[in-house]
Amino acid sequence: MTSSISVDPSAQIDAAYAELIAHLKRSYTLDSVAGLLGWDEQVNLPPGAAGQRAEQHSVLADLAHAQASAPRLGELLAALEAGSGRLSPDQGAVVRQARRDYDRATKLPADFVREKAVQGSRGYHAWAKARAENDFAGYAPVLQKNLELARREAAYLGSGDAPYDAMIDNHDPGLTAAAIERLFTELKKELVPFARAIAASPVRAKADALRGFPLAEQRSFLREVTERLGFDYRRGRIDVSLHPFCSGGGDDVRMTTRFNVDEPLDSLFGSIHETGHGLYEQGLPSAHLGTALGTHAGMAVHESQSRLWENQVARSRGFWKFFEPRFRTLFPAQTAAVTSEELYLTVNSVAPTPIRVEADEITYNLHVILRFEIERRLFAGTLAVEDLPAAWNELSQELLNLSPASDREGVLQDVHWSGGAFGYFPSYALGNMIAAQLWYRVLSLRPGIEEDCARGDFTWLLGWLRENIHAQGRRLDALSLVRQVTGEELSPAPLMRYLRERYGKLYLK
Amino acid sequence: MTSSISVDPSAQIDAAYAELIAHLKRSYTLDSVAGLLGWDEQVNLPPGAAGQRAEQHSVLADLAHAQASAPRLGELLAALEAGSGRLSPDQGAVVRQARRDYDRATKLPADFVREKAVQGSRGYHAWAKARAENDFAGYAPVLQKNLELARREAAYLGSGDAPYDAMIDNHDPGLTAAAIERLFTELKKELVPFARAIAASPVRAKADALRGFPLAEQRSFLREVTERLGFDYRRGRIDVSLHPFCSGGGDDVRMTTRFNVDEPLDSLFGSIHETGHGLYEQGLPSAHLGTALGTHAGMAVHESQSRLWENQVARSRGFWKFFEPRFRTLFPAQTAAVTSEELYLTVNSVAPTPIRVEADEITYNLHVILRFEIERRLFAGTLAVEDLPAAWNELSQELLNLSPASDREGVLQDVHWSGGAFGYFPSYALGNMIAAQLWYRVLSLRPGIEEDCARGDFTWLLGWLRENIHAQGRRLDALSLVRQVTGEELSPAPLMRYLRERYGKLYLK
Repeated sequence: MTSSISVDPSAQIDAAYAELIAHLKRSYTLDSVAGLLGWDEQVNLPPGAAGQRAEQHSVLADLAHAQASAPRLGELLAALEAGSGRLSPDQGAVVRQARRDYDRATKLPADFVREKAVQGSRGYHAWAKARAENDFAGYAPVLQKNLELARREAAYLGSGDAPYDAMIDNHDPGLTAAAIERLFTELKKELVPFARAIAASPVRAKADALRGFPLAEQRSFLREVTERLGFDYRRGRIDVSLHPFCSGGGDDVRMTTRFNVDEPLDSLFGSIHETGHGLYEQGLPSAHLGTALGTHAGMAVHESQSRLWENQVARSRGFWKFFEPRFRTLFPAQTAAVTSEELYLTVNSVAPTPIRVEADEITYNLHVILRFEIERRLFAGTLAVEDLPAAWNELSQELLNLSPASDREGVLQDVHWSGGAFGYFPSYALGNMIAAQLWYRVLSLRPGIEEDCARGDFTWLLGWLRENIHAQGRRLDALSLVRQVTGEELSPAPLMRYLRERYGKLYLK
Repeated sequence: MTSSISVDPSAQIDAAYAELIAHLKRSYTLDSVAGLLGWDEQVNLPPGAAGQRAEQHSVLADLAHAQASAPRLGELLAALEAGSGRLSPDQGAVVRQARRDYDRATKLPADFVREKAVQGSRGYHAWAKARAENDFAGYAPVLQKNLELARREAAYLGSGDAPYDAMIDNHDPGLTAAAIERLFTELKKELVPFARAIAASPVRAKADALRGFPLAEQRSFLREVTERLGFDYRRGRIDVSLHPFCSGGGDDVRMTTRFNVDEPLDSLFGSIHETGHGLYEQGLPSAHLGTALGTHAGMAVHESQSRLWENQVARSRGFWKFFEPRFRTLFPAQTAAVTSEELYLTVNSVAPTPIRVEADEITYNLHVILRFEIERRLFAGTLAVEDLPAAWNELSQELLNLSPASDREGVLQDVHWSGGAFGYFPSYALGNMIAAQLWYRVLSLRPGIEEDCARGDFTWLLGWLRENIHAQGRRLDALSLVRQVTGEELSPAPLMRYLRERYGKLYLK
């Protein structure tokens, strides 16, 4: 036996790691409070309280920033990085993510973070007003201001020459505009002609087939569906907001939807989409919330989860085999004149629309590519905010073969930019690609997956996603995770295959 | 002209005062976030999220405490107190209140504040469970723990020998158990025999007269009523919770109620009660939120506002002259067999009940005196927690002439103690006294006030309360404010006069 007066270096590393975790969990809790304020703002806030809420956001953002940029955190990270040989691979992943977040937090001045929080809240209310009044001119200064803030943010982060990459990296660590452009260019090549062919098909779901669905029964049905998919309402809830979203995390996941008596599928599929997000959040390892092991792998993967449940699962024949009888029981009069095949066609209806959130699965991706193009030009400086409506309408013509009737149905339709969330849109189409690629992997492992759906049994699928996606946290970035789970590089090919198989069969017979 | 190299002392005081205000407003904002977490906990929280919420409360309480006990605040207060000759009376009131709060904050250790916040959240959930299961034994440890925390709090505040006075002072600065006991003893002397006489009256509102009131119409009616009383729904909202309450402030006042198809008046009067609180909060000078000039004058005055609207106003003949037609229009079948006089008798029905929140106006005060007695004994150490149900039932017999059938209808009925809110109950009966005393002042100034009500016009009354109570903030304590507004010392006499005039006429003809 040897003895030593020096402190055991392993014990030092363990102590530093434990302190790091406590620090990160406190950050997570502060962020979760800010998240609740955001949820409440869109679900509950009295109209006169916007100023008061902005004040609350500002103070919270300030405190969260102080916590995330605390010098002590820097010391802990330096100590852990110096002793990284003693860290397990999981601990290494936690430290790397914490370093990334710490660098972001220390590079962004507190005043800037405060300004962005206040502007985000103001921007949301300005957008809601501008959209209601179809007033792009009233919204333009908000966009201009948000773009300026985004450029300043990129400059602080040291990506001043590639501000759009910095925005994308916010949502999807590791992805770049160039990589996305390659994927989107490849996708566009096949998707635009396919969408045109579908649009030219004489097959059409009957318009107005589903009308007059009482909200109470719509609520019941969507509760039954989302619960059966696996959403745990003991650890979450669903409410109503202008724009559906999923927020919160851990034991308190909050989804929203919106209802229209004449659009029962809009609310249903919107809710299933948010349920996909919610299942991911509920599936993250709860003991590790606030660290890389308990954090999602970026928004593209998040969107893959919502899309897989919404599209691959809930638009399948199996799903409707199980839920159609219940749907008809709840809405006997409303569905009396609709055959099963008509109902299925309506579930998978395609129709040109200028509105992204109302778009069918095929053209949805083109809506996203449009926004990606716009964002790229805005950040490249080749498009001015004032010229945005014209550019929007031109791209809409080129990609979607239609022009929005008003800015309200065009450039004003989405909430994202109002809060400064640039670089988020690409995640939607990337998520569609990942979802399709995951789905073909599922099919190879479990060829009878659609029969599971037809029995209303989603436990195998949820279990597989829990293990292969949810439990992974943020150990890997999106591209690496896809490679690990599917054995292939991310590609638009599975998405095109899936769209041809589902929609080609229905519309191009 | 003279010149001086010394800095202008007035400018120094102005700067310190401005910094004080900014500091207090930041505290107010942090407290308002904690308040929103509390509201959300009782209105929205998924059952599985209690632990996560407790964590949020804990972090927030920690930050609020750090803000409220910051050494810089102590320096500012010392400077302002040293230069108090240069402060206006309003500024003096702000500094005095800030000193009181600062002393409380610095005397309570951060660990203690954190422990109390966590225990408050746990206690609420334990109470809800114990109440549902009629399990006092399951609740007793929570009460025991909360009592210990209260004693420790009193000790920290230097009131270790009078812990109950410290609790009362939390809610009603300036009031003591001895002062309350004098008022309650005087009230009890007349009220117990009066309540017995009323109970012996053969006159009775028909039980079950109002049954089967659909919730949607109940919601509409209470919205109309509360809006007409003056509640501004652009700056507030009403939701559903197990136990009605009013929280929030400024531009975001959040009230709750609960609905029962067979108890339409329960929800209506509960909502009007909370509206009284809400009107007070909405009437506090918004520019001064977070300071003594924008803070209510204690819970007794707060309760006087809820009680005045609920009882003096909404149980009057004038009020029902205006609202009865609308009530009958919304509920034609349910009210068809009820005459106007029967309806009015039902609004002012008296019936023995073990449940405080269901009690009539007369016995309500006895329910409060019971709780005051219990709290006094608990803090004096003459009553052990385990003996609480027996003492409760004995006092219930003595004061109310009835025994609760179960602890659920007895000692488990109220939420307050679950969160450690001891010393709050007396405010309810003090509020009744103040409301009656204010009401006779109103009558002397505006003898036609009941005709205002009969026209559905509450603007004069609200204007008078805005000016004489709401706009005063916390410049004065409850007893001084009553003296200033009514010209008399607070006394139970106006309350007894009011009860005799309203209920004597109906029941002791």
